[in-house]
Amino acid sequence: MVRCSEERMAEKISAFSKFGDAGHGGITRYSLSPEAIQARNEFIARMKAIGAEIESDDLANLYATIPGSDPDAKRIVMGSHCDSVKNGGNYDGILGVISAMEVLETVAGQKIPHRHPLTAMIWTNEEGSLYPPAMMCSGIVCYDYLPENIRRNFRYEDMMQSRSVLDPGKTFGEALEKSGFRGDRKNRLDPERYLYMFETHIEQGPILEDAGKDIGVVDCVLGMFNYRIRFYGQTTHAGTFPMPRRKDAFLAAARALCWLHEEIDRLGIPDLVYTTGEVVCHPCVHTCVPDYFDFSIDVRHEKAEVLSKVLEIVKSCADREWAGCTCKAERAWNRDTVYWDRKLVGYVKEAAEECGISHQYIHSGAGHDAQFASYMLPTTMIFVQSKDGLSHCEPEFSSLKHCTEGATVMLNAVLKADRD
Amino acid sequence: MVRCSEERMAEKISAFSKFGDAGHGGITRYSLSPEAIQARNEFIARMKAIGAEIESDDLANLYATIPGSDPDAKRIVMGSHCDSVKNGGNYDGILGVISAMEVLETVAGQKIPHRHPLTAMIWTNEEGSLYPPAMMCSGIVCYDYLPENIRRNFRYEDMMQSRSVLDPGKTFGEALEKSGFRGDRKNRLDPERYLYMFETHIEQGPILEDAGKDIGVVDCVLGMFNYRIRFYGQTTHAGTFPMPRRKDAFLAAARALCWLHEEIDRLGIPDLVYTTGEVVCHPCVHTCVPDYFDFSIDVRHEKAEVLSKVLEIVKSCADREWAGCTCKAERAWNRDTVYWDRKLVGYVKEAAEECGISHQYIHSGAGHDAQFASYMLPTTMIFVQSKDGLSHCEPEFSSLKHCTEGATVMLNAVLKADRD
Repeated sequence: MVRCSEERMAEKISAFSKFGDAGHGGITRYSLSPEAIQARNEFIARMKAIGAEIESDDLANLYATIPGSDPDAKRIVMGSHCDSVKNGGNYDGILGVISAMEVLETVAGQKIPHRHPLTAMIWTNEEGSLYPPAMMCSGIVCYDYLPENIRRNFRYEDMMQSRSVLDPGKTFGEALEKSGFRGDRKNRLDPERYLYMFETHIEQGPILEDAGKDIGVVDCVLGMFNYRIRFYGQTTHAGTFPMPRRKDAFLAAARALCWLHEEIDRLGIPDLVYTTGEVVCHPCVHTCVPDYFDFSIDVRHEKAEVLSKVLEIVKSCADREWAGCTCKAERAWNRDTVYWDRKLVGYVKEAAEECGISHQYIHSGAGHDAQFASYMLPTTMIFVQSKDGLSHCEPEFSSLKHCTEGATVMLNAVLKADRD
Repeated sequence: MVRCSEERMAEKISAFSKFGDAGHGGITRYSLSPEAIQARNEFIARMKAIGAEIESDDLANLYATIPGSDPDAKRIVMGSHCDSVKNGGNYDGILGVISAMEVLETVAGQKIPHRHPLTAMIWTNEEGSLYPPAMMCSGIVCYDYLPENIRRNFRYEDMMQSRSVLDPGKTFGEALEKSGFRGDRKNRLDPERYLYMFETHIEQGPILEDAGKDIGVVDCVLGMFNYRIRFYGQTTHAGTFPMPRRKDAFLAAARALCWLHEEIDRLGIPDLVYTTGEVVCHPCVHTCVPDYFDFSIDVRHEKAEVLSKVLEIVKSCADREWAGCTCKAERAWNRDTVYWDRKLVGYVKEAAEECGISHQYIHSGAGHDAQFASYMLPTTMIFVQSKDGLSHCEPEFSSLKHCTEGATVMLNAVLKADRD
């Protein structure tokens, strides 16, 4: 039983928080931006310093590997991403990279014997904040292993043409070329050279904190579906058109949203989450009745039968007339629940127990690169308690104690896996 | 009793519809755009052809004047605007310009005796579609006569700095300078040289059509207030945060909107109109719970006491908690009901009666340049029936018969006013 160093973790968290520092506690660090390149260069310098070999693949995914005692053994990889959302926090993604670095530093520093080469990894463009979609590069790397309904969103040629949300004249392919990190396709993660994947990540929710547990032993990523609910009315002038004859698409959407909450909540499923986060209003002028409104609905749960029940409600929303407007519900995408490799989940649980770190099983509500990797390799994740459950915002925080415990659990789980 | 010409009206409506033709029945003709300049040049050419003298003031407001028999008599002005909203129709604004041209052409063509000079006018930037606010140039011209709560929105220096909604690098002042239509400040509409103002406009609502009346004798422009209702929640990740602890600003806004409709409708005021047309959602990402949402509310009615009752409801909305979010209601602006000059309203009604054109009294729910002019000069308006009440959209339509009747009523009302 070995432990990671709080001092080293603190220094790394502080060092990486400077790359893209937004000036009020958080960061904006889009993938392949100058700030992300600073973080990548720091990763390379620190990994070279402990003797790691650096590789990058054709998607600029970065791999830093220290050798094991068996030159023929496959690598065990640990990693996450170093990009953020706009005004994000200092932990989402980067904590998984820092934890992987810490594991390698601990193993190298203490000369801990291990058979397999150990790799710390940075995935490119997990957030998809500047170049959608999210989890772009794990989607491309794992493409051949993904189910058709997921893989169709990650065709290499389409991804290279993904346009910047800030400047549609720029594509992801161009940013990749300019970054200087585009390497060789043969360096991509693959099951011929890699044995297992581990990803440490902040929980991004309040479940561990509420339960007083430091670490989450993640067992799955929740299944989900994402729909777009659209309302079609008629625009008219705010001052001249009598109320009873209006077809107000915003009012329609508001009524439908309240109804959806009532109907879904009536199912009484305590661990169901659903979110209506994105809206479009047209013409969106204060003197015009809106003739069009839509909102996204993102629904997540472990059980397919629960998702089906909610989907029925979402679809039946479209069968109704709302404030004189017609309604359509369109599927954007869906995914089944992904269960982590049972053996690796067991190693994580045993590691936490042996280290005396409080823990519990937990589902991941968020998607992560590990989820795509799991179609290709045995994979698992470790969650670190989040303060107040906040993430994708600047107050996002995990304590140094919890961050270090996460790295310690990963280190010990990896050393168990090393015996396979 | 004289009549305008359907043939000439048809030809003018068709000719002006080409300037900014969007290709599917409507136009996009922003103020001072190349398309609006084409319309202005056409106006000038046609007015010069009947011997009118052309003037423009320092805001590019255009005036075409034919002399009357009394060289000392003040002018009677008729006019409206030639700019449109994006993908607007072929009647809003421009019909008032065409009707004024038609009156001058009829008077000049039939050599109808008149004492006062008669002026056809184009107001610059009524819609404010590209350079807000709406009614910008009548606001500046009538500035000294406006109540303080209105005039503060129309300071000359501020207006010159109004930024293009499409390209914030461009200002209205620059567009004005480049247009070639900027003339002399001494040419502005003023009570020293002008006696009365008439504006013919489409109704933009369904009241005349429902009542089977061709023409509206407009008696006032409705009083109104405009508020912004803001909701403050907490953003969290769509997949990781339990439902009961969320503070979803979009859900808050939806519930508040439904409540506002219930409460306001309970007042049972049939001719009240209120509109929630503009929304802002933040961060507006499908995987995040919105932490901020706001919407505009625009409320219009003739009676101040009715507006007060609705305002109480709007304000009390902010005293409540909605879906765990706090709420604020902020006043954007308000205006009192503006009554037209009773004598001029009488002339319009008599003209319609004598011409045998079906008509009724009507309020204007929309704002018009005439409304600001009325603080400076005796002013009135004539409404032309709108098909299906639609306006600010491409299906906007008024029949040739109704358009010509509108011009005929204005012609005869002006000839009555000419005797003053």
